[in-house]
Amino acid sequence: MRRILSGDEWTIVQECFDDENSLFSESIFSLANGYMGGRGNFEEGYGGKTLRSFFHAGVYYPDKAQYGWYKIGYPLKNNKVINSPDIIGIKIKINGSKLDLFKNSFKNFKRILNMKNGLLKRSFIFIDKDGMQSDIIVKRFLSMHNKNLLAISYSIVPIDRSAIVEFEPYIDGNVTNSDSGEKTDCFWKEVYKDEESLVVKTKSTDFHIASTMRVKISLDNKPLNSEYISVKKGKYIGQKYIINLPKRTALKIEKFVSSFNSRNIEKNEILKLSKSDIANNSKYDFDYLLLASEKKWKKIWKKIDIKIDGDVYSQQAIRFNLFMLNSTYTGEDKSLNISPKGFTGEMYNGSTYWDTEIYCLPYFLYLDSQIAKNLLLYRFNFLPQAINNAKLLGLKGALYPMITLDGNEGHAEWEITLMEIHRNSAMAFAIYNYIIATGDTNYMVDFGFEVIANIARFWADRVIYNSENKVYTILGVTGPDEFHNNVDNNWYTNLMAKWVLNYAYKQSAWLKNKNEEKFNEICKKYNFKKEEFKKWQEISEKIFLNRKGDIFVQFDGFFEKEQLTIYDVPHDQLPVVQHWSWDRINRVSLIKQADVILGLYLLSDHFTLNEKKENFIFYELRTLHESSLSPSIYSILASHIGLYDKAFELFKKSALYDLEDINNNTEHGLHITSMGGTCLSILEGFIGLKVKDDKIQISPYLPPEWKLLKVRVIFRERLLSISISKKEISITLLKGDDMDIFIYSNKFNVNKEKCLKCRRIIYNSKN
Amino acid sequence: MRRILSGDEWTIVQECFDDENSLFSESIFSLANGYMGGRGNFEEGYGGKTLRSFFHAGVYYPDKAQYGWYKIGYPLKNNKVINSPDIIGIKIKINGSKLDLFKNSFKNFKRILNMKNGLLKRSFIFIDKDGMQSDIIVKRFLSMHNKNLLAISYSIVPIDRSAIVEFEPYIDGNVTNSDSGEKTDCFWKEVYKDEESLVVKTKSTDFHIASTMRVKISLDNKPLNSEYISVKKGKYIGQKYIINLPKRTALKIEKFVSSFNSRNIEKNEILKLSKSDIANNSKYDFDYLLLASEKKWKKIWKKIDIKIDGDVYSQQAIRFNLFMLNSTYTGEDKSLNISPKGFTGEMYNGSTYWDTEIYCLPYFLYLDSQIAKNLLLYRFNFLPQAINNAKLLGLKGALYPMITLDGNEGHAEWEITLMEIHRNSAMAFAIYNYIIATGDTNYMVDFGFEVIANIARFWADRVIYNSENKVYTILGVTGPDEFHNNVDNNWYTNLMAKWVLNYAYKQSAWLKNKNEEKFNEICKKYNFKKEEFKKWQEISEKIFLNRKGDIFVQFDGFFEKEQLTIYDVPHDQLPVVQHWSWDRINRVSLIKQADVILGLYLLSDHFTLNEKKENFIFYELRTLHESSLSPSIYSILASHIGLYDKAFELFKKSALYDLEDINNNTEHGLHITSMGGTCLSILEGFIGLKVKDDKIQISPYLPPEWKLLKVRVIFRERLLSISISKKEISITLLKGDDMDIFIYSNKFNVNKEKCLKCRRIIYNSKN
Repeated sequence: MRRILSGDEWTIVQECFDDENSLFSESIFSLANGYMGGRGNFEEGYGGKTLRSFFHAGVYYPDKAQYGWYKIGYPLKNNKVINSPDIIGIKIKINGSKLDLFKNSFKNFKRILNMKNGLLKRSFIFIDKDGMQSDIIVKRFLSMHNKNLLAISYSIVPIDRSAIVEFEPYIDGNVTNSDSGEKTDCFWKEVYKDEESLVVKTKSTDFHIASTMRVKISLDNKPLNSEYISVKKGKYIGQKYIINLPKRTALKIEKFVSSFNSRNIEKNEILKLSKSDIANNSKYDFDYLLLASEKKWKKIWKKIDIKIDGDVYSQQAIRFNLFMLNSTYTGEDKSLNISPKGFTGEMYNGSTYWDTEIYCLPYFLYLDSQIAKNLLLYRFNFLPQAINNAKLLGLKGALYPMITLDGNEGHAEWEITLMEIHRNSAMAFAIYNYIIATGDTNYMVDFGFEVIANIARFWADRVIYNSENKVYTILGVTGPDEFHNNVDNNWYTNLMAKWVLNYAYKQSAWLKNKNEEKFNEICKKYNFKKEEFKKWQEISEKIFLNRKGDIFVQFDGFFEKEQLTIYDVPHDQLPVVQHWSWDRINRVSLIKQADVILGLYLLSDHFTLNEKKENFIFYELRTLHESSLSPSIYSILASHIGLYDKAFELFKKSALYDLEDINNNTEHGLHITSMGGTCLSILEGFIGLKVKDDKIQISPYLPPEWKLLKVRVIFRERLLSISISKKEISITLLKGDDMDIFIYSNKFNVNKEKCLKCRRIIYNSKN
Repeated sequence: MRRILSGDEWTIVQECFDDENSLFSESIFSLANGYMGGRGNFEEGYGGKTLRSFFHAGVYYPDKAQYGWYKIGYPLKNNKVINSPDIIGIKIKINGSKLDLFKNSFKNFKRILNMKNGLLKRSFIFIDKDGMQSDIIVKRFLSMHNKNLLAISYSIVPIDRSAIVEFEPYIDGNVTNSDSGEKTDCFWKEVYKDEESLVVKTKSTDFHIASTMRVKISLDNKPLNSEYISVKKGKYIGQKYIINLPKRTALKIEKFVSSFNSRNIEKNEILKLSKSDIANNSKYDFDYLLLASEKKWKKIWKKIDIKIDGDVYSQQAIRFNLFMLNSTYTGEDKSLNISPKGFTGEMYNGSTYWDTEIYCLPYFLYLDSQIAKNLLLYRFNFLPQAINNAKLLGLKGALYPMITLDGNEGHAEWEITLMEIHRNSAMAFAIYNYIIATGDTNYMVDFGFEVIANIARFWADRVIYNSENKVYTILGVTGPDEFHNNVDNNWYTNLMAKWVLNYAYKQSAWLKNKNEEKFNEICKKYNFKKEEFKKWQEISEKIFLNRKGDIFVQFDGFFEKEQLTIYDVPHDQLPVVQHWSWDRINRVSLIKQADVILGLYLLSDHFTLNEKKENFIFYELRTLHESSLSPSIYSILASHIGLYDKAFELFKKSALYDLEDINNNTEHGLHITSMGGTCLSILEGFIGLKVKDDKIQISPYLPPEWKLLKVRVIFRERLLSISISKKEISITLLKGDDMDIFIYSNKFNVNKEKCLKCRRIIYNSKN
């Protein structure tokens, strides 16, 4: 955990930069606008540890998958979102010294991410090889107003004497992914280039990207019309300038790039579009363009902000979570999804995981149900691929892939891809969750039932009946806890399969009643028979859920593992995944992430308070939270069972997972999807937000460190503002009709006339 | 299973060649001489399905290992024996038609492997694009007399009219491995080339190979001094000839290549050596050189032959097994070992597996105990690496690698590399086996104890004490049955660990008594204390061996798997590994290969006849033999329990595993190591050969189809010839002193005076 960062409630500030923290801070200072994005790389390059990355959402390449032993069901291609051309780059030399913070000296380094408007600013004094100093200020943003626009302002002021400054803004298509192995190959082919534009395409998927740059130069804010040398070589274009810069004169380089990809636009149009877009935008200066983006951010913050008074540290952290999640995914494009690292690293290949359904979708439910619906439709549209995926494994129904960009399975480690089939239930649960929250039962008719029925069909085929014990078992799975692979009867997997089978059975009856025509149409399409629905119910009733006393047993044999708790692991061996061999991790009782606890969270109403408490205490002692997806869930459950100190501790772990580098792996990229979980640990945890019987329920708690917690929540066309102070809960209806709301199980009416206020119950946080 | 082959007791003959069987037959007609070898590729190339391969033993390259998720303990490099320069190639055009059996017509195809002398001969009539015919006869061998020599005789006779024949014998260093992925790269760099020699070296391991070719041409057996055009491009040298060949005149091209690698020779010497070697050899003609190799093969056959009268099919098959195994490994070079596919394919990377210790070493024990000792020393010399390998996993003692070329682990699929730790016991058992067979107890003093003690130390650290059941468990392993990964308490693994711990404990006492100085030296070197030895005994006594009634349970939860037997699998779904997803394979009770049965075979004396029978019947019904290592072990055990029909059926399955392509994967290469098992199913199975208390025991059985079975066996400086006929057993002492031998538990004396004869007990094969 390194805390090299400071800042305030709206900013992340770094004043100490060195090669040891360069990868970590590249991740932290990532920028994105949903359309494109990349790591906090330096425009001028960096000779030390760096992972230079810039991505266009959903622009991927099917790399050949390599296997030691190919097994049936493995995909032959390994899709990955690939680095798109480097558009941020500006090569700089001052008096012959290459500007490189690894190779040359510098002082007064400061980098600020302004989360309010998405501006990344960096300043330092560069010391060239002769010891001469120059003041450098670099600003950059990706426009939220115009998703194709990148803007950079790079200013250089020689302090001690005049300087010869050579600089070359460029666009470079010679980019690779660092994980492509020894025989690294470039995924891009050149299509076209001229002095300011470069068009490249991927070799096999035929994605095109056109980028056009325009450079504006000024001296002490007076525009300078300087000639440049056009550099064109391979998939690279640059504009090389040489300026004789007088002492204490400010050279400002403004680089604007407009980048379009062919995902949703005809590939022959994108060059034209990027050229006209840059022509339009380069009429303005950096600050003016920033203003437009800032305006958009203002709107976004109004919608998404979670306000915490009295604890700047938490406030900053939750804003960081909100900023990064909402700049990764803006919910406009139904064909996009949310990858665990977003635009902040190559890991996880920019692909979609079950993280979306469990950690992000419930967050968007309270923010914008249309976004949640778009996420559901993303999966609905890939139902044929999910059915094919099950077929590839010799199974009926639909098995949604573990990792995907095109609906097909995009990764193969059998212990995950073939075994972490619990993800399938997450797809069904998301539909349930959405309908409960929105009341949009039409979704079930139009899209939902096809999905849940095919998932139920999968489970019914995947179970094995144990005639000795008269139960259905699910063998050979990996639960959410990826430290234990290929286990039998993972409690979470079984629980959720049981739930899906029952839900699908009930929904079959509901749909038949609601819309028999549609019901019959679906039954015909997939050849569903009445007996099959009944069978689902039967299986659901008899699925084996192992318990030992009060403890739900994570999997068969869990208690035969070497029984360690988190206190048995010395601090210098954490995270264990970076210190212990897989062999060792596999055979002890330590858990990577919420597994049984995730089941208790999702199906909270199915269990008694005592069951939740007993299991929380048991598993929390064994959980290392070496997945970012873990602490938020534990935090929510801790709130539900009244262990508020624990809930707060785990909230902070989730909120600071990246800022404090909790798991020593932020250098690979930020944990974007788990940021949804962080928000939920406030909304569903501290505030206790829940929808039941078409009503909102809350039972707020306020951590002692906080003075006020304020959120906005959208529920069925109503916009509510909920404030929790030490003593009081105030709810204002900002939009929509009067409604009832349950606070600590008491019914209140919220209306536009006046703000609803009631006393907060002060919990003893040690109960 | 395709039976496109015929032949007799000394030959394998193919008269039907097409693209569908080309890969299969390339494997079958592989040639090797222990030093180098390759697949039965056509000299002139083949435009259809082909895997062109030629290897030098032990010349490898550390390819970068790629992982989806790197786990601690995984090697970063993936060593593989790589294709060495193609030295067999001759490009040929007849009247402008490229000679290619894929692209052009041919008839009367016949290919013969003469196992007696290692000559591969191919003849056919080639029909060029104008319909003109030419008689082609190609002969090739790798000399057993001179391990560096390859000789080819290629003869062309135009039948219908004269022909312009263009041909270009060549050496080509532009070779890759087919498994190197999309971004295939060549492992070789050029060092030197001239008209007849090419020297290349591997990029990182710095192995050098020098090859020199000499071509001799004759017309109707009269030498022809024709000029050639020297072709040199990149890592390629060729000699291009154009001959105007009169009708019915025989053009004979003799190509001799001498190839040296730098494994054991100074790299600057190898070019000189290959040049002088080829100068010496090219004085002679093909037939003369063949004679020298044939003479060597004659000696080899005298030593290794297993003679079967009355069943040509079995005779041919067992000779094929003997021929391939003994041309893969000749036992002269202690730094070499036996890879599962030898020189016949890329699969398994030319690496050493536990196959050697369990399937090959026991075979060599009866053939040449020095070879067996060399194999043991191969492992002894890699003990430091094995200790380091255990350390990498956070464990004490030594863990021998699963797959290796340099003593380090050379492969990473965690379920195999980290979990198939049963291989460790095989290393210890091989030492025990060797000492029992040879009486060479000095081996234990000089080398053996260090190895077994470090293996025992590993097991003592790897077990986990289950305080509830008061047993030691071994969790998270994969047994020999690779269909079930990451299981707990694999019976075989536990059994062999128990055995090793007990053996090492006993040997510690034995060594202390036998040679206290050496004992103290070893204890000091590895810091062994008396208490540690005692602990081994304690653990050994308490290792958990699960049984359910009479059945030894393969692993915890085996009986909870979906209970299928081999009769539940339709024929068209075999082998299941090519038809079922890994997900499905994992959760049923079907077994890939001998697992519990392997334990019963190795520690046969520890179990009652009834235990062996019950478990054989139970597991045989569930075993698919989708590893070539399986049927031989089942055959031996079937012999031991008197299920002779089954023993014979399984012997044939093992002997014909490649010739009949039992597992539909011979196209990737032959199953070389399992050929040792085939021989053992005769020696230890049918003949019942066993050493106990320093005496040989036999209890021979003769399959009804056979008239006579005759083998030679070496036992402690005695050479015995054992013949089994329908009614009689005859044993002749060919070399060495008188000795006692047990036949069906009766003691006999064998001496040089006369052949020992006794009546054979005729078993009812259905008992």
